[in-house]
Amino acid sequence: MDVDPRTGMTILDADSCWALLASADVVRLAVVAAGDLEIFPVNAVVDGHTLVFATGEGTKLAAVTIARDVVLEADGADAERGVAWSVVVRGRAERLVRFADIYRAEELPLRSWTTHPKQWFVRVHPAQVTGRRFVSAAGRGRGRR
Amino acid sequence: MDVDPRTGMTILDADSCWALLASADVVRLAVVAAGDLEIFPVNAVVDGHTLVFATGEGTKLAAVTIARDVVLEADGADAERGVAWSVVVRGRAERLVRFADIYRAEELPLRSWTTHPKQWFVRVHPAQVTGRRFVSAAGRGRGRR
Repeated sequence: MDVDPRTGMTILDADSCWALLASADVVRLAVVAAGDLEIFPVNAVVDGHTLVFATGEGTKLAAVTIARDVVLEADGADAERGVAWSVVVRGRAERLVRFADIYRAEELPLRSWTTHPKQWFVRVHPAQVTGRRFVSAAGRGRGRR
Repeated sequence: MDVDPRTGMTILDADSCWALLASADVVRLAVVAAGDLEIFPVNAVVDGHTLVFATGEGTKLAAVTIARDVVLEADGADAERGVAWSVVVRGRAERLVRFADIYRAEELPLRSWTTHPKQWFVRVHPAQVTGRRFVSAAGRGRGRR
């Protein structure tokens, strides 16, 4: 993995990015729909080199259906090792409509952040996955405020 | 606070949103610059009803300077109470250039996620702050995968 000499950040390879994405409890979905930038937390699972999440009818589904081009971001800090990381996935969102695709998604260990029923599945097909890891001051304890 | 009858989500009032923003270790900055949607984790502190973060020269500063219209998002889960929350701030980013503004920002308890020196401060002036709280399945323990 490469270290950026200007910032001291480590550029993560694809395998590391996918491992971190799989470890994330929540990722953020950002999308520009009808001129508005929307950002939502979603519980996504890694399935092969795609990400799948469930959603109900609403702004999130509408935005993804309109825009299709989405950005997912996950981040985290490892307090013990004093490192933090961020992974960004750019890709295309596909609302699953074929029964075979939906059945497959239903087999995934998706757990929603909410107890509200989520009747749609969305699969994000990445075009680009990038990640960075950096030495973290904040990771060494909260106490920031 | 209002509960959305369709989703069971609680719409948070402004004070609750600001308290949650102040509690967040990291927020995500999303911005559309030169047609690209960028999303970065930032360590922002609440200062009055604004958010301030530090950044070095780079993509983040360039994106904010070009776009000015930004969206910040923070989220979290309270495992003990079984609730999760998300707060979204839409606003305008101002790169601080006046000495008085920079001195004031330097007094803030900003702690960077990285050890890389950050020579610029950005203050986000919100136009809209929205937040939701919901009963969380994921908040009751990881074990999702």
